[in-house]
Amino acid sequence: MAAPVRPLSRVAYLGPQGTFSEEALLSEADLARCELVATQTIGEAISAAASGEVDAAFVPLENAIEGSINATLDQLIFEVDLLIEREVVLEVHIDLLGGAGVDLGEVRRVYSFPAATAQCRRFLAQTFPRAEVIATNSTADAARVIADSPSSDAVALSPPLAAKLYGLETLARAVEDHAGNQTRFVLVGNGARPAPTGHDRTTIVCFQQADRPGSLAEMLNRFAARGVNLTRIESRPTKQGLGDYCFVIEFEGHLADEIVGDCLRELHMITGRMKFLGSYPVPGREPSAARAEIEAERQQADDWLSALRRGLGEAGADNAR
Amino acid sequence: MAAPVRPLSRVAYLGPQGTFSEEALLSEADLARCELVATQTIGEAISAAASGEVDAAFVPLENAIEGSINATLDQLIFEVDLLIEREVVLEVHIDLLGGAGVDLGEVRRVYSFPAATAQCRRFLAQTFPRAEVIATNSTADAARVIADSPSSDAVALSPPLAAKLYGLETLARAVEDHAGNQTRFVLVGNGARPAPTGHDRTTIVCFQQADRPGSLAEMLNRFAARGVNLTRIESRPTKQGLGDYCFVIEFEGHLADEIVGDCLRELHMITGRMKFLGSYPVPGREPSAARAEIEAERQQADDWLSALRRGLGEAGADNAR
Amino acid sequence: MAAPVRPLSRVAYLGPQGTFSEEALLSEADLARCELVATQTIGEAISAAASGEVDAAFVPLENAIEGSINATLDQLIFEVDLLIEREVVLEVHIDLLGGAGVDLGEVRRVYSFPAATAQCRRFLAQTFPRAEVIATNSTADAARVIADSPSSDAVALSPPLAAKLYGLETLARAVEDHAGNQTRFVLVGNGARPAPTGHDRTTIVCFQQADRPGSLAEMLNRFAARGVNLTRIESRPTKQGLGDYCFVIEFEGHLADEIVGDCLRELHMITGRMKFLGSYPVPGREPSAARAEIEAERQQADDWLSALRRGLGEAGADNAR
Amino acid sequence: MAAPVRPLSRVAYLGPQGTFSEEALLSEADLARCELVATQTIGEAISAAASGEVDAAFVPLENAIEGSINATLDQLIFEVDLLIEREVVLEVHIDLLGGAGVDLGEVRRVYSFPAATAQCRRFLAQTFPRAEVIATNSTADAARVIADSPSSDAVALSPPLAAKLYGLETLARAVEDHAGNQTRFVLVGNGARPAPTGHDRTTIVCFQQADRPGSLAEMLNRFAARGVNLTRIESRPTKQGLGDYCFVIEFEGHLADEIVGDCLRELHMITGRMKFLGSYPVPGREPSAARAEIEAERQQADDWLSALRRGLGEAGADNAR
Repeated sequence: MAAPVRPLSRVAYLGPQGTFSEEALLSEADLARCELVATQTIGEAISAAASGEVDAAFVPLENAIEGSINATLDQLIFEVDLLIEREVVLEVHIDLLGGAGVDLGEVRRVYSFPAATAQCRRFLAQTFPRAEVIATNSTADAARVIADSPSSDAVALSPPLAAKLYGLETLARAVEDHAGNQTRFVLVGNGARPAPTGHDRTTIVCFQQADRPGSLAEMLNRFAARGVNLTRIESRPTKQGLGDYCFVIEFEGHLADEIVGDCLRELHMITGRMKFLGSYPVPGREPSAARAEIEAERQQADDWLSALRRGLGEAGADNAR
Repeated sequence: MAAPVRPLSRVAYLGPQGTFSEEALLSEADLARCELVATQTIGEAISAAASGEVDAAFVPLENAIEGSINATLDQLIFEVDLLIEREVVLEVHIDLLGGAGVDLGEVRRVYSFPAATAQCRRFLAQTFPRAEVIATNSTADAARVIADSPSSDAVALSPPLAAKLYGLETLARAVEDHAGNQTRFVLVGNGARPAPTGHDRTTIVCFQQADRPGSLAEMLNRFAARGVNLTRIESRPTKQGLGDYCFVIEFEGHLADEIVGDCLRELHMITGRMKFLGSYPVPGREPSAARAEIEAERQQADDWLSALRRGLGEAGADNAR
Repeated sequence: MAAPVRPLSRVAYLGPQGTFSEEALLSEADLARCELVATQTIGEAISAAASGEVDAAFVPLENAIEGSINATLDQLIFEVDLLIEREVVLEVHIDLLGGAGVDLGEVRRVYSFPAATAQCRRFLAQTFPRAEVIATNSTADAARVIADSPSSDAVALSPPLAAKLYGLETLARAVEDHAGNQTRFVLVGNGARPAPTGHDRTTIVCFQQADRPGSLAEMLNRFAARGVNLTRIESRPTKQGLGDYCFVIEFEGHLADEIVGDCLRELHMITGRMKFLGSYPVPGREPSAARAEIEAERQQADDWLSALRRGLGEAGADNAR
Repeated sequence: MAAPVRPLSRVAYLGPQGTFSEEALLSEADLARCELVATQTIGEAISAAASGEVDAAFVPLENAIEGSINATLDQLIFEVDLLIEREVVLEVHIDLLGGAGVDLGEVRRVYSFPAATAQCRRFLAQTFPRAEVIATNSTADAARVIADSPSSDAVALSPPLAAKLYGLETLARAVEDHAGNQTRFVLVGNGARPAPTGHDRTTIVCFQQADRPGSLAEMLNRFAARGVNLTRIESRPTKQGLGDYCFVIEFEGHLADEIVGDCLRELHMITGRMKFLGSYPVPGREPSAARAEIEAERQQADDWLSALRRGLGEAGADNAR
C-alpha cells in the first residue's frame, strides 16, 4: 500500500547553523547525509519543499513549553499540500552565551527568539531584571548578532551548539525555567508515504461546520467510541473572522488501519471538510494492548457481518455469535 | 445479493379458524393461496417452520395495546434460527359474541384470551361487574367454547370473523377500551431473504455484557450517531436469573445498506454477541429525507477515504474537500 | 425527608390462597401480621389500594423467565398514582399436582396460569405430548379447579403450597424448564415513602417525545455519565398506536441522593414527561464502590462551585483545585 | 450575587503608546479616563495587576488571524489568580510607516512585531522580496525604532495611530493579507466580578487527567447535552512534558446561571482540576432562543424534582407532568 521510501537528497531547515532544527536534523543518520539548505524562516523551508526546490523540509511543530509552532501549522493547513513523513523529538536546552569579557552584572541587552525568551522568563527576571529583551529571528540568530558586534553588556539565549559555531563563551548552561523541555520536529514532503509499522501516528485537520453546533464533541466521540487514543488537539483560526476555527487532531494509528479508516469516514460525514496531514512512524512507541484488542474485535465483527451478508439468499443459520 | 423469493406452499398460523392471525394472513394474496395449517399455540406454528414441516409461520409479534407477544419473541430469540421475511399490520376489533337467546343482564361468565380480556377491562367492569372471566387459548377459541356448549349466561370476546365461523350472534361491536388498536404480524421462515427495497426494517437481538456497564446506552449511541431511526426496543430476560436481559432492537434500513452494516459492525464490537432476525420490506413507509442525505454523505466520505488510501505511494495532493 | 413508615393493617394480593404472591407476602413478618385480602386479579388488588379500601397491594412485577408482569406495570403507569414501597424476591418452583389416583400415562388435561405453562413448555412436551393445556386465572386457581372436580386424567401446574391447601398430591416437584427461577414482587401504596438506606432502587417511567429522535439514547447517556447503574429497562406501548412507547427504567439510588436528583432533572428536560414510581430499599445489596467514589466527587464539585459563586463580589483567589 | 463594579483608577497595558492595545483601551470611556500605565511586555502588565500595583491589566487574548496570544493565556492559567472582567474587540489594520523620503524601491529592512509580520507575509513577499524582516517588541515599537533612527531603506508595520505619535508618514494603509482582522482584548483584575447580564461569556481551564482517556470528549458532551454553546477551545501545554495539555474553554453563559452551574459541577467531576477565569458581559450578543428554551425547561425540571422530594413523607400524587 505504500511506495518504498524515496531517497532524499536535499532537505531545507530553519537556519542559520546552530539552531535546534539543525541539531535535530543531524540526529537522523539519513538526513544528515543529505544536502542541507538553511532558510531564514520556517515558511521558506516549507515553501521550498512545496515548490520542489528541495525534497523535504525539516521544521519544528510543537514545543513542550510554548506549544504549537503556528507558522508550521498554518502553512501545512492553509498553504501547501505536503504530508508529514517522520517525527523527531529533541531535548532542548538553552544556554546563555556571550563574547569574551562579558560582565554579567553589566548586562543591559538580551537577544533571543521570542519563544526561547519566554522559556527563560524567570531566569531573566532574577538575573537581569533591568536588561532590555531584544527579539531575533531564531535562537541561533541571537548568537550570530552577538558574534557580529560583540559587546560587554549584551548576551544571547541560544542552543548549546551555537557557542562553538559563533565563537562565543557559554556563560550559563540550561537556563530554561522548566526542566525536561522538548521540541517535536517533523519532516514534510510530497514524496512516498510511509507504510504502517504498528507504531504510527496520524495528523488531520477538521473544519467545523458553523451550522452544526457541538460538532467537536461529536468528532471526539467517534475516536472515543473506537478506543482510538488522541494524542493532541489544537485549534487554529481559519482567518475568516474571530470565532471560526479548525482543529488539528493527532492520534495513534495509520490511515491503512481499519479502525482509523472507520474514524476518518465518520469524521468526514460530520465535518464535510477535512485535510489529511500524514500517517508516520513514532519510533519506540508501543501500541496499547487495548488497541490490539479492539482491532481483533473489529475483525471478528467484520467477519460476522460479511458472513451474514453472504447469507442473503441462503437459508438462515445460527448467527448469534 | 438476495435470492428470488421462493414460492411458499404451506404456512402455519395460530388457529383455530377465526383468529386475528388468520384474518391478517388472508389479507396477503399470495399467502391466502397457500395451504394453511392452523396450530393450537404460537409455539407450534414456529416449530413447524423450524422443522421444515411448513415453509413459514405467520405469527403475531406485537400489539399496540398489550405490547410484545413474548411467546413469539422468545422462540425467535432462544429456540429457532428463522428470519422475519415480511410484516403485516392489522386493525383489530373485539366483538362480544354469544349464542341465541343470551340475556346481557344475566351474563355470569366471559370467555377470552387474556390479552383480549385485558383490552376490554373497562368495558367488562361497566357491563358485567359480577361476571367471572375465564381464560381460553385464543380469541377464536372463546367463540368455539361458547358454540360447543351454548348457555344464556356465557359470552365470548372474539374477532368479528368468529361469529360467522361458529354460528354465534354479535351482541356488541368493537368493545375494546382503546380505539385504533393494531397487531403486527410477521412471516418467519428459513427461505430466501428479501432484497433491499428502500423501505425496509431490520430486527436484531443484542446480548448485554455483564462486565460492560452502560452498554445499552453505547449501542443506542451508535444508531443515533448515524441517524438510523430506531422503531422499537424491547428487553427480554435471558432466563439466566433476574436482572439479566437481552434487547430486541428494530430500526429502519436493510442489512445490505452501508450505514446499517457500519452500525451492526460496531454493535458486534460492543456486545460480543448478537442475533440477526431479518431485514424485510415495510410497505408504504418512505425512508426519511434525512436518511437519504446521510447515505449520500457516507458515500462521499467513503470516496474520500478510498482516494486517500490509494494515494499511499503517490505524491500528496489537495485532499481538503 | 421521609415520614416514619406508617403501620399497614390491610394488604391486598393476587389470590386465591396458595399463589406465589401469598407465599412471598408471608415471607415478610410485618405483612404476614396484616389482614390479607385475596383478589381474583392483579388489577383488583392494585385498584383496592388506589381506592383506599386496603393500605397497600402486594403484586408480582417481574419474573426471571417470563419477564415483566404487564398487568402490574400498565396499571402503575397508566391508571393509578401509587408508589413502590418495598420489593421481595421469591425463588419460584412449579409442582405437578393432582387428585388421588391420577395415572400420569392417562393425563389428557393440564391446567395452569399461562405464564406458568410457558415455564414448563419442555416438560409438558416430553411428559404429556398429547394433553390439552387449559388456562386458569392463577397458578393456585389451577389446583382449585382440580380439587373441585377431581379426575384421573387432569393435573395442575401450581405452587408447592397449593397441594396442602387444596388437598392434592404432589406428583412431581420443580418441573419448570429453567432452574433458578425467581419472581420479584412489590408492595405498592400511597402511604409514607421510604427514607434512603444506602441500598435503594428507584423506578421511573419516561415518555418518549415523538419529535425528538434518539431520546432513549440521550436518557441512558445521562445515567452513564454519572455512573448510575441501570438495573432494568422495559418498553411498554402507550396505547396511542403501534410504535409509540414509554420506558420503565430502574436504577440504583434514591430520589433523595444528589446524583439521582441530577439525573432526574436532566431526564425531565429531555423527555418533558416522566412519572416517578418510587425509591425503596433493596435488602442485601451493597452500593458499588464506584458509586461511593462518584458521590464523593460530586460533593467536591458542589463545594467548589458554591465557593466560586460565593466569591462573586469578592476578590479572586486560586480556584484551580 | 455580584458586588457593584469597583471604580478603576490605574490600568496597565502593553505599550508603548500607539499599540493596538492602547487603541482598544481608549475605545472604552471609563477606561480612557483612568491613569494608563504602558508596560514593555504583556507579562509586565498582568503582573502589575496581580501585585496590586495597578487595578487591572488590559491585554490581547486572541487575534482572528494569528490565534491565541499565548503570553496572556499562560500567565492567566499558570501564574496569577485574576479574572476576566470585560472583553473588547477591535478591528485591526496594519499600515506601512516610514520616515520622510523613504523610497519603496530601496527598502531593505522591515521592522515589526512577529505576529504582525506574519499577517503581512504575502504583502512583504510581493513588495519587498529581498528585504530583511527584523523583530521588535510590539507593533508600535517598530515605529519608535524607525523614528529613533530614520533611514531611507527602513520601514515599519505598525498600527495607524503610531504614524502621528512617532511623526512618521503612512506609506500604505491596511497592508494585512486578510481583510476583516480583529483582536479580542480582555480586562483582567481581582476586583468585583460582573453580575449576569443575560449576554455573558465564561472562560475556564480544564486539566486533563492522564489516566482518564477520552476526557475532552466527555467534557464537551456535558456542554452539548445542555445546549450550552462553546465559543472557543484552545489547548495549551502544561509544561510538564510533550503530550500533556490543558484546555481553555469559552462558552455562552454566566457562572450564576443554573445551566452553567450544572455544567461546571460535572466538568469538575470529570477533570478533578479546573480553573475559573471569569464570567463577563459580551455586549451586543443576544443569547440564542434555544438557550432561553433550555433554561425554561431546566426550571420546570427543577420544580418537578423539588415537588417530588417535598412529597417524601406525603401521599403520592400524579407526578407525570
